[in-house]
Amino acid sequence: MYADHFSLENIPFGIASGVSHPEKSVVTRFENDVIFLAVLAKAGFLPELTQETRKTFSENTINAFAALPKSEHRAARSAIQKLLANFADDLPQHARVPMSDVNVHLPIFINNFTDFSCSRDHVLNASEAVFGKRELPPGFDHFPVGYTARASSIVVSGTGVRRPMGQFRDGHKVVFGGTKKLDYELEVACVIGKGSNLGEPVNIKNADDHIFGLVLLNDWSARDIQSLEMNPLGPLNGKSFATTISPWVITLDALAPFKAPQPPRNPKIEIATYLKDPEPNSTYDIELSASIGNATIADEICKSNFSNLYWTLRDLVAQQTANGCNLVTGDILATGTISGSIDESHGCLMEHAGRGGVEIKTETGGSIKKTWLEDGDTVRLTGIAGPGVGFGDCVGTILSHH
Amino acid sequence: MYADHFSLENIPFGIASGVSHPEKSVVTRFENDVIFLAVLAKAGFLPELTQETRKTFSENTINAFAALPKSEHRAARSAIQKLLANFADDLPQHARVPMSDVNVHLPIFINNFTDFSCSRDHVLNASEAVFGKRELPPGFDHFPVGYTARASSIVVSGTGVRRPMGQFRDGHKVVFGGTKKLDYELEVACVIGKGSNLGEPVNIKNADDHIFGLVLLNDWSARDIQSLEMNPLGPLNGKSFATTISPWVITLDALAPFKAPQPPRNPKIEIATYLKDPEPNSTYDIELSASIGNATIADEICKSNFSNLYWTLRDLVAQQTANGCNLVTGDILATGTISGSIDESHGCLMEHAGRGGVEIKTETGGSIKKTWLEDGDTVRLTGIAGPGVGFGDCVGTILSHH
Repeated sequence: MYADHFSLENIPFGIASGVSHPEKSVVTRFENDVIFLAVLAKAGFLPELTQETRKTFSENTINAFAALPKSEHRAARSAIQKLLANFADDLPQHARVPMSDVNVHLPIFINNFTDFSCSRDHVLNASEAVFGKRELPPGFDHFPVGYTARASSIVVSGTGVRRPMGQFRDGHKVVFGGTKKLDYELEVACVIGKGSNLGEPVNIKNADDHIFGLVLLNDWSARDIQSLEMNPLGPLNGKSFATTISPWVITLDALAPFKAPQPPRNPKIEIATYLKDPEPNSTYDIELSASIGNATIADEICKSNFSNLYWTLRDLVAQQTANGCNLVTGDILATGTISGSIDESHGCLMEHAGRGGVEIKTETGGSIKKTWLEDGDTVRLTGIAGPGVGFGDCVGTILSHH
Repeated sequence: MYADHFSLENIPFGIASGVSHPEKSVVTRFENDVIFLAVLAKAGFLPELTQETRKTFSENTINAFAALPKSEHRAARSAIQKLLANFADDLPQHARVPMSDVNVHLPIFINNFTDFSCSRDHVLNASEAVFGKRELPPGFDHFPVGYTARASSIVVSGTGVRRPMGQFRDGHKVVFGGTKKLDYELEVACVIGKGSNLGEPVNIKNADDHIFGLVLLNDWSARDIQSLEMNPLGPLNGKSFATTISPWVITLDALAPFKAPQPPRNPKIEIATYLKDPEPNSTYDIELSASIGNATIADEICKSNFSNLYWTLRDLVAQQTANGCNLVTGDILATGTISGSIDESHGCLMEHAGRGGVEIKTETGGSIKKTWLEDGDTVRLTGIAGPGVGFGDCVGTILSHH
């Protein structure tokens, strides 16, 4: 599946293992196959790369590779492209393995995870769903508002998601039990390559130097647990039970042909200097979608676009470090739910809750209204930037609570 | 300083290096000296310990040691106590080095950091300072409310703290600049030893199995930045610029003689089962203090006690994992500001702001009112559980913004 997302123009990075490769190591994906880069490096292919770079391919996360200078990431991508273009059928034994014969793993060791709230539409829709009025948070127009999120419970696509237990209001009572309002959130995150020093903000013009690449992210949310706990310190147990990311980190170089301008800013607000981006095309045109399926239903419930976001990934790097906070290789900065301006582009179920849920087609040709996720539901996020350059998918199935 | 905190009854764990030990390694502290445990282990002392345990003493963080079973921590503490009691003057060369000849470092690699809000007095005082009324957050009586905090910017005591830049309200305008409302927060945190699995809540009766030990923690806060950003997702840039912890992790075994009952709970609230602790003495009697000093002032501004907290560290372990979130060795769960019921026990400056600041004695015998921290101010937190068992101090000096 998604073979067309992984052409020679993509060359993402990830981690895989399999019968022929019992130890996890760094791989790329080409069409429906996985290419084990350490096998190539050891067989003397990729001679353009430094020995240090080739050594990183044997690690069990991509962190060491991601920490290298951009020039080495570019050299690796272009050497792999050349090799696959010319010698795809003459690779050493076990270098190229069908996706069906490997397991893909969490690609990065994630040190820190911040989730921002970059979508104006999502924030207005969420405000309407929760408070009955379309209102922005006080900081929204001034900077990307966000919160630190839990890194330990980030899992790779395909991992089951256990319905969390927690405390929430049931009528006037506070009860403890499995969440009754389980939601997904369609997001994208950047993975930090080069870190930064404590006390030294990253200038927005250099933000891309620190972004290794992008993944899809599903920020599973228990709305009832979240609602009781988040005043005033923000969400904790309503989110920290699981977050799913896609296994392939798509580099900024692969996404470069799909650069797009950010949407216009509120003209009444003078943007702070540290958020004034000299780059006119500071975001990317990436089509995103979400679908829900189970034994009886299977339907796309959201079509959105990354370029809808009011704040860009470059803004997030500037915002995260403006106070001197340091970035570490493997950090994740996520966008928050990516919604568009119409009902069909709502990136989570909460935005549909006011109208009784989202309409989903059933296998038998009818339709049902879905308010919240049920046990057995599979949520699948996808993203594609253009011909041959996509993210594959980011999938999770809800398991019943213990 | 603080030699009396580090008797044979303490035996904390930390990380140090020095001229005779250029590489960081695991140490304990005895009075005013540091004991390099790998030197002892290599010289054949501590034969009671397994080879695996002795190997962890050569690591540059205490994580590998902290991840071992409690029985090994106990064996190590008791072997070190016996050795120092009987052979303190016959240790191998360079095993025992004066504090003045070493540098102490961040003792742990911190994977995840959650900061809770366990002090009823602090929450009521903060509510009064910010909203003009003494009101608890909706979740407060039901569970420990908290937020995920930034792990990357945690520094060890003695590290300078750069005044953060950020956006905040100045009259009706939002401006960007160095914070004008820099505050400290007197906190304690537990360091997680044994981790837990995703999807498997830790039963509160087993919480201590996961707590390796305790440190002092100063949660530096820029109140103006925090105030604009924290609705609705909680604090981010107002806190993420720096958090200071003390260098010595005090084990639960050292604190055991100072166990104390938790304060009574609100009788109107039925506590959820997962927070019903069968242990009657579920917290510790630890005297805490904070002082502020600079070229002209030096004064204790807060005297508080750990046992004041409405929620215990055992509650925090249960709360963090109730939704299936996993713990990782080296995680930190902090208490939030530890205030008592009187003015002299306010654990941060914000609680004094409504009355124009806290009164501080000057070196010349007068006094001034201090509202917020100024460049050059040094904040020193201390904690002592009882004779011979203390935390030393947790110190940071404010540096001007760039």
